[in-house]
Amino acid sequence: MPTAPTSTTGPVAALDIGGTKIAGALVDTEGRILARAQRPTPAREAAETVFREVGAVLAALASSPSWDAVEAVGIGSAGPVDAARGTVSPVNVPGWRDFPLVEQVRERVGDRPVTLVGDGVAMTAAEHWLGAARGHADALGLVVSTGVGGGLVLGGRLHPGPTGNAGHIGHLSVDLDGDPCACGGRGCLERIASGPHIARHALDGGWRPGPGGDASAAAVAEAARAGHPAALAAFERAARALAAGIAATAHLVEVDIAVIGGGVAGAGEILFAPLRRALPDYATLSFTRGLTVVPAATGTDAGLLGAAAAARATR
Amino acid sequence: MPTAPTSTTGPVAALDIGGTKIAGALVDTEGRILARAQRPTPAREAAETVFREVGAVLAALASSPSWDAVEAVGIGSAGPVDAARGTVSPVNVPGWRDFPLVEQVRERVGDRPVTLVGDGVAMTAAEHWLGAARGHADALGLVVSTGVGGGLVLGGRLHPGPTGNAGHIGHLSVDLDGDPCACGGRGCLERIASGPHIARHALDGGWRPGPGGDASAAAVAEAARAGHPAALAAFERAARALAAGIAATAHLVEVDIAVIGGGVAGAGEILFAPLRRALPDYATLSFTRGLTVVPAATGTDAGLLGAAAAARATR
Repeated sequence: MPTAPTSTTGPVAALDIGGTKIAGALVDTEGRILARAQRPTPAREAAETVFREVGAVLAALASSPSWDAVEAVGIGSAGPVDAARGTVSPVNVPGWRDFPLVEQVRERVGDRPVTLVGDGVAMTAAEHWLGAARGHADALGLVVSTGVGGGLVLGGRLHPGPTGNAGHIGHLSVDLDGDPCACGGRGCLERIASGPHIARHALDGGWRPGPGGDASAAAVAEAARAGHPAALAAFERAARALAAGIAATAHLVEVDIAVIGGGVAGAGEILFAPLRRALPDYATLSFTRGLTVVPAATGTDAGLLGAAAAARATR
Repeated sequence: MPTAPTSTTGPVAALDIGGTKIAGALVDTEGRILARAQRPTPAREAAETVFREVGAVLAALASSPSWDAVEAVGIGSAGPVDAARGTVSPVNVPGWRDFPLVEQVRERVGDRPVTLVGDGVAMTAAEHWLGAARGHADALGLVVSTGVGGGLVLGGRLHPGPTGNAGHIGHLSVDLDGDPCACGGRGCLERIASGPHIARHALDGGWRPGPGGDASAAAVAEAARAGHPAALAAFERAARALAAGIAATAHLVEVDIAVIGGGVAGAGEILFAPLRRALPDYATLSFTRGLTVVPAATGTDAGLLGAAAAARATR
């Protein structure tokens, strides 16, 4: 599954499906967006109601003059996904459990092939095609946000794994005896480094949100920039956990770059400086010495560009 | 790099290079060993002295009537290795640092292609070809012994990674704030689950070796079988650490089987029973639910068979 688009010449249709919005685009071979559509996700509604919005996004794209040239459809979805079966069960869309998304989309796109990957895999595909991982044969992409997701490029190709979930770094245990995670595990990376857990850690340490009551990781990052010890400690801890997880990945599959996107990456050096300091404490073996960690470069369209890249990669 | 031999018809020459012995064999397409040679590793000697023994093993193999038909040479070596450069720096052979093993072997084998992989990768190749991972497209092999090594099969192919070290599970940190490891890291899987660390843990807990003074992991396993609490606790701890590392691998690359070889795996159910119990505590996501853990099946020839498999896989 080469990430770089080679075998198609027309645009592809991309869908980026999350708990708050369903975005769609037609994307050309250079990564330019020719048409866009977007609807809010009715996340608490029944399966058909949620899918109706996907249908509306596809209908809007189909009204574009570029639609007839569309060669394939790529979907990046909040997980878990099951690419082998074409189903999705996004944690934050409870109405969709083993929902046959690929089959339903296929009914609306004619004979075009439909590819499904997890959102972390999609972001990684985007970064490998057009972003910070370009030119790297072996790369890890991370999305650090309300959760921690990820994806892998191995040997120059996107590596979604049999079910489209490979790179799921958020539920690596980096602390064998650590706190229970919502997934049922213990000491998961996500349990330490996600936005909500960074905020919780800062609150536990005595940080208090300002008068506006903003208790987000972005607010913690602002406090850390102002030197608040508990805010700094929360990012330090998240950075160490991320360093351990990234190093684990490098030891396991020899990636030489980790690209971090998602809201928490917006903290910039408040996150990246302690992460780069901690990395040599865990990436110890000679073959991991060149490992670098950088911010993602594809921005808010990463999900769409990644879904497009995944669609091209499977052709 | 398909692990199953397909493109050669003649035998291959295999070398298995470790800190105590240098083994060689000619291996046919069915995994039968047609000729063998072995020498002790002069592990404390100078680089040339160590290589002289490799040369002696090759010379012995070359005296076999099957030698002329040999199509390729595979080397599995104690690591770290650098397959890209063809060099090895085995921790327990201090005279070899960036030793140009591939070049030196190539000078003695004519035009035959020479493939180098780490010993954990070789063991995994053997298990995928002829052992417990046969038929699995995505598998992790582990060698739990004085250290903890490993290797990966992904998408039906051996995945040695750019430098031949992929699958290096022993230096995953499963305990962010854990004890310092010899590698410079903290809380490494090897620091908890290797034979010497199992024995140390048991000794710390009050277990004492018998009159013979055998403080090996095998002796701890025997005490555990007799119900000694500290011996049981040491294996329980090692099993939890292995479960976390195996689950991390499944989350990252979607392996559905882990095959464990090496001396410590000889403890049998003393290790495997607590490991299977602990696995669901860490392998929590839906796509890891089918994950199984089994003992290796290729026995003491795993290194040779794996070196042969790796040589065939790269053709």
